[in-house]
Amino acid sequence: MKIINGRQIAKHIKSDIKTKIKNFKDITGKTPGLATILVGSNVASKIYIQSKIKACQEVGIQSFHNNISTQSSQDAIIRLINDLNSNTLINGILLQLPLPDKTFTQNCINAINPVKDVDGLHPVNYGKLSLLKSWNDIIKENVLIPCTPLGIMHLLQYSNIQLSGKTVLIIGRSNLVGKPLAILMLSQNATVITAHSKTYNLDKLTKIADVIIVAVGIPNFLNKNYNIKDNTVIIDVGINRTVDGLCGDVDFNYIQNKNVRITPVPGGVGPMTITMLLSNTLKAFINQNKINL
Amino acid sequence: MKIINGRQIAKHIKSDIKTKIKNFKDITGKTPGLATILVGSNVASKIYIQSKIKACQEVGIQSFHNNISTQSSQDAIIRLINDLNSNTLINGILLQLPLPDKTFTQNCINAINPVKDVDGLHPVNYGKLSLLKSWNDIIKENVLIPCTPLGIMHLLQYSNIQLSGKTVLIIGRSNLVGKPLAILMLSQNATVITAHSKTYNLDKLTKIADVIIVAVGIPNFLNKNYNIKDNTVIIDVGINRTVDGLCGDVDFNYIQNKNVRITPVPGGVGPMTITMLLSNTLKAFINQNKINL
Repeated sequence: MKIINGRQIAKHIKSDIKTKIKNFKDITGKTPGLATILVGSNVASKIYIQSKIKACQEVGIQSFHNNISTQSSQDAIIRLINDLNSNTLINGILLQLPLPDKTFTQNCINAINPVKDVDGLHPVNYGKLSLLKSWNDIIKENVLIPCTPLGIMHLLQYSNIQLSGKTVLIIGRSNLVGKPLAILMLSQNATVITAHSKTYNLDKLTKIADVIIVAVGIPNFLNKNYNIKDNTVIIDVGINRTVDGLCGDVDFNYIQNKNVRITPVPGGVGPMTITMLLSNTLKAFINQNKINL
Repeated sequence: MKIINGRQIAKHIKSDIKTKIKNFKDITGKTPGLATILVGSNVASKIYIQSKIKACQEVGIQSFHNNISTQSSQDAIIRLINDLNSNTLINGILLQLPLPDKTFTQNCINAINPVKDVDGLHPVNYGKLSLLKSWNDIIKENVLIPCTPLGIMHLLQYSNIQLSGKTVLIIGRSNLVGKPLAILMLSQNATVITAHSKTYNLDKLTKIADVIIVAVGIPNFLNKNYNIKDNTVIIDVGINRTVDGLCGDVDFNYIQNKNVRITPVPGGVGPMTITMLLSNTLKAFINQNKINL
């Protein structure tokens, strides 16, 4: 087993983002701004937000945190979003999910100005991404793309893992990970299999996959019940809090004697996700200021 | 081999659409209107447009045809679209593809008011569809969905083919068919494999598929080189004009002694696609008139 070190790759990308932001500041006097919104006081969400704010500081993005009551109505959240939409210091708006009332989610996301939608979950951005055909077009059009799948693509690219013609098995079909990842993988000419809780023949699918992405949120989900080829690349998106600490969706005891490459938890996909938030904020800033790269 | 008769299923759905339109007319005095736009004089496109106009007549949709010069600029096409956007007699706008200049395509589609986008190719509609999770939500939200994949879903539903947990192999990743079909299949809990010209192991994938959708536009593409399980359902989306007449992407000689179900060409997916255009026009009419079904 070989480890794909997400922390190290993220560090490289962050250093690049930091340099770009400094250069823009030197020329224009402007700095990208990211607004974060936390509704309520979920402990895990607070930790995520804190690490996002810290990452902003590291690269020179100004962050504006908004913590509002867990009882906030949908209207109250949307009012806050509208204020942030019209604030010119703010280039990106991140609404921390899940909301205490999940039925508010899509309406609140829809209220975010698509040019400030750094999570890439507004229908306009989601649709634009889905309609683009090649990776080159996606990069050229500067579309805002959900951070975790974008981070996975960069992780693979930095690790020199070619995707064209490869069979990529994505386990999980969420809007945040599985669905946009399928589109991104297709754009790099991978054959894409999307499996999920209703899939009955997952053991047959793992056997033919060149790359397996596990995003189900269940510790030890990918275990000895599933055969894996030699040289398979495994991307573990799970972040599960157990009594023994943080772990992913892959059973490391099963994997560790196999001839595969894998992202660890922590230190794999997580740092890449946060880094892509910084990258999207910079992208939004560039788009809004019509800066030519 | 058993034939899935698309013509017959389309007839049932059209009869239902016709009744609904008559009822709405009796109550409101209004009729749905569909504008078709043909740029240039491509023969195949003319045939498609004619059959769409004829289908509109059959169910009581008023059609407004616009044929403009093959040299029309992007601005000229968009001006026409804007006129149709503001015409209250028109509920749906269909821009016949391909355009003589393909680089105009997405900009012209983006100019269509999303509520009149009966092809479901505007980023807003594409994004909305992609973000919805279950088939029930998709139906409830009245999203406009590309006609061919929507027709395939109805074809399977009318043929009592359950999709939950099934392995669906989609060959082809176009914006019109493969990509939205993957989303629709996921919404009905299928495991989805998207393959295409860069896929190297298609012979392994056909063997594990319960449903195979072929949308590549190559006669006899699915042939004896590919093993197919007993009871596989094959949906042939190809419409290829050869010296021997119209044919699909499946080699019928190979398939005809197998224990499978298949849609023929012509008479399979084609009639369903046109029927879904009628259904989308009715849906757009209902959405625009805020009629409660």
